[in-house]
Amino acid sequence: MRAAIFAGPHRIEVGQRPDPVVSAPTDAVVRIALSCVCGSDLWYYRGESEFQPGPIGHEFLGVVEDVGRKVSRFARGDLVIAPFAYSDGTCPHCQAGYTANCATGGFWATSGVDGGQGEAARVPLADGTLVRVPGSGHSDAMMRALLTLSDVMPTGHHAAVSAGVRSGSVVAVVGDGAVGLCGMIAARRLGAARVIALSRNPARQALARSFGATDIVAERGDAAIEAVMDLTNGIGADAVLECVGTGQSVATALAIARPGAMVGYVGVPHGVEVPVTSIFYRNVGLRGGPAPARAYIPELIDDVLEGRIQPGRVFDYESNLDGIAEAYAAMDERRAIKSLIRVGTV
Amino acid sequence: MRAAIFAGPHRIEVGQRPDPVVSAPTDAVVRIALSCVCGSDLWYYRGESEFQPGPIGHEFLGVVEDVGRKVSRFARGDLVIAPFAYSDGTCPHCQAGYTANCATGGFWATSGVDGGQGEAARVPLADGTLVRVPGSGHSDAMMRALLTLSDVMPTGHHAAVSAGVRSGSVVAVVGDGAVGLCGMIAARRLGAARVIALSRNPARQALARSFGATDIVAERGDAAIEAVMDLTNGIGADAVLECVGTGQSVATALAIARPGAMVGYVGVPHGVEVPVTSIFYRNVGLRGGPAPARAYIPELIDDVLEGRIQPGRVFDYESNLDGIAEAYAAMDERRAIKSLIRVGTV
Repeated sequence: MRAAIFAGPHRIEVGQRPDPVVSAPTDAVVRIALSCVCGSDLWYYRGESEFQPGPIGHEFLGVVEDVGRKVSRFARGDLVIAPFAYSDGTCPHCQAGYTANCATGGFWATSGVDGGQGEAARVPLADGTLVRVPGSGHSDAMMRALLTLSDVMPTGHHAAVSAGVRSGSVVAVVGDGAVGLCGMIAARRLGAARVIALSRNPARQALARSFGATDIVAERGDAAIEAVMDLTNGIGADAVLECVGTGQSVATALAIARPGAMVGYVGVPHGVEVPVTSIFYRNVGLRGGPAPARAYIPELIDDVLEGRIQPGRVFDYESNLDGIAEAYAAMDERRAIKSLIRVGTV
Repeated sequence: MRAAIFAGPHRIEVGQRPDPVVSAPTDAVVRIALSCVCGSDLWYYRGESEFQPGPIGHEFLGVVEDVGRKVSRFARGDLVIAPFAYSDGTCPHCQAGYTANCATGGFWATSGVDGGQGEAARVPLADGTLVRVPGSGHSDAMMRALLTLSDVMPTGHHAAVSAGVRSGSVVAVVGDGAVGLCGMIAARRLGAARVIALSRNPARQALARSFGATDIVAERGDAAIEAVMDLTNGIGADAVLECVGTGQSVATALAIARPGAMVGYVGVPHGVEVPVTSIFYRNVGLRGGPAPARAYIPELIDDVLEGRIQPGRVFDYESNLDGIAEAYAAMDERRAIKSLIRVGTV
């Protein structure tokens, strides 16, 4: 099969990989229809984190092509979403709802597992991992929205849940990438009365507003902190979603949280130092990590299918597999919020 | 009046201080009956944190002697508990339940405010700060228990609340000082099914068991982590209370938390570094700070008055004001868990 291959920083190629086959009885093979590029893919793309040359990508939606004899929940022809981590669904961590910390699971494109940016993938632990999409004949807009359930929508939701967003909350969102934008959707969905989006890009500001942001702060650093404090009468936000993962973004998030508030962080931390004495005295907490996407999809998918949320609008660039190098470049250069990759048909 | 005075590391003296008087209309003057020494007092006692020479102490119980004209909730003769921070009760942080972060409040023995280890204290913002003790003729054991509501019992409770302890939780408590022991009481009170106490001191282990600890781990460092993982079938604790504040204790607390768990930390951090990448990938959160004691006392005092919890048993050393230097030394040398200071009579 053809698949995207990481050949080194700024070098995304399309090459041949072995056709995936069922190798364990709990495996499925999924023919991929839609894939996409994640903000976290940019870390290795830019050479800022270690990554082995080889297959890449961890978000996909497709059709089941084959299943192992111990797969009972899926059959050939099912339209399925694959969360960004595979999981058994039965270990204590999965049972507690933390499927991305599954005791026997793992991540795509590592340890001999296929990536999500290719024509097909072997899915380990298929019964615990995949989620079937009900219905058929979904519109293209709907398919794009469903694809976000693979990662960015549950990840934004995890930031909101970790930050303790509830009805009436004043929420601040640091980060206007796809995850931050999905975090705004999630915050409103959980009842936030006010969503302050930190964003300096006019197109992203407009999307933020359409996703429910009530206030935009275009400043950065200390000026952003001051602006949020001004907007909240000097109190700070009830809940803060940190959706970037840099030292500055985490520092800003912690500083705009009011006493007693939580910062829900989902951006993979790079160069982050936690100012523990400062947050201790302010009673500000920090919680987050890889989203348990598999656990969240069932509670999010109905809102997607019924059109109450439209996270698919974060895709503002698209290509096919042959154009994937440019799809990465568009995100790297911030020409695109998120790049969709059309790999096959449903 | 006579009061304890910090004269420098390891030098606690008793000296003369001006008799407190009502100086603002919201002040009260409280004649102190019982005071005590806090684990956090040991930081300056040992020269490990900066502290101005002068009055000390922040936990006391006594009788109202005078009130300003704007004090409406208290009158001369009332038996009252003073939380370790004073607070107005009306600012947004107090209204949200974070009274130790009051916008106009502060801490005893700083900025010209009296300490709690003396014969009397001027109480700023008396209506927002003090809590009246109902009834009269309380036993000595009850008075000792009521005194813990000034700090250690609400602080242990804050660790448990911050860690998200709920019915059925498997809880680990790092620290067998008075706060850790009160944390065990709090964890059981909130419904913990199992309380694993990290303690290597036989007397503290016994008290821990009587407060509801179900398992004792006497190891430290990596061996303690291994022991807790063994006790929890490799899963880790559902909630961890960190009641020390050192680098090692926080590292241990974070390591024994299961994916998705919170570490509630209440020990003032000294030399703590948060391993952010590790806790991120494990979905372990950190939350805590100075306890909103004033907000918690109303929900804890009934359990104290009705004898359902006996936090006063943490006092295993006592003296009068003249013996306070030795009361500090006894705690410093770990001969005492917590030292009671009998200052006056009720």
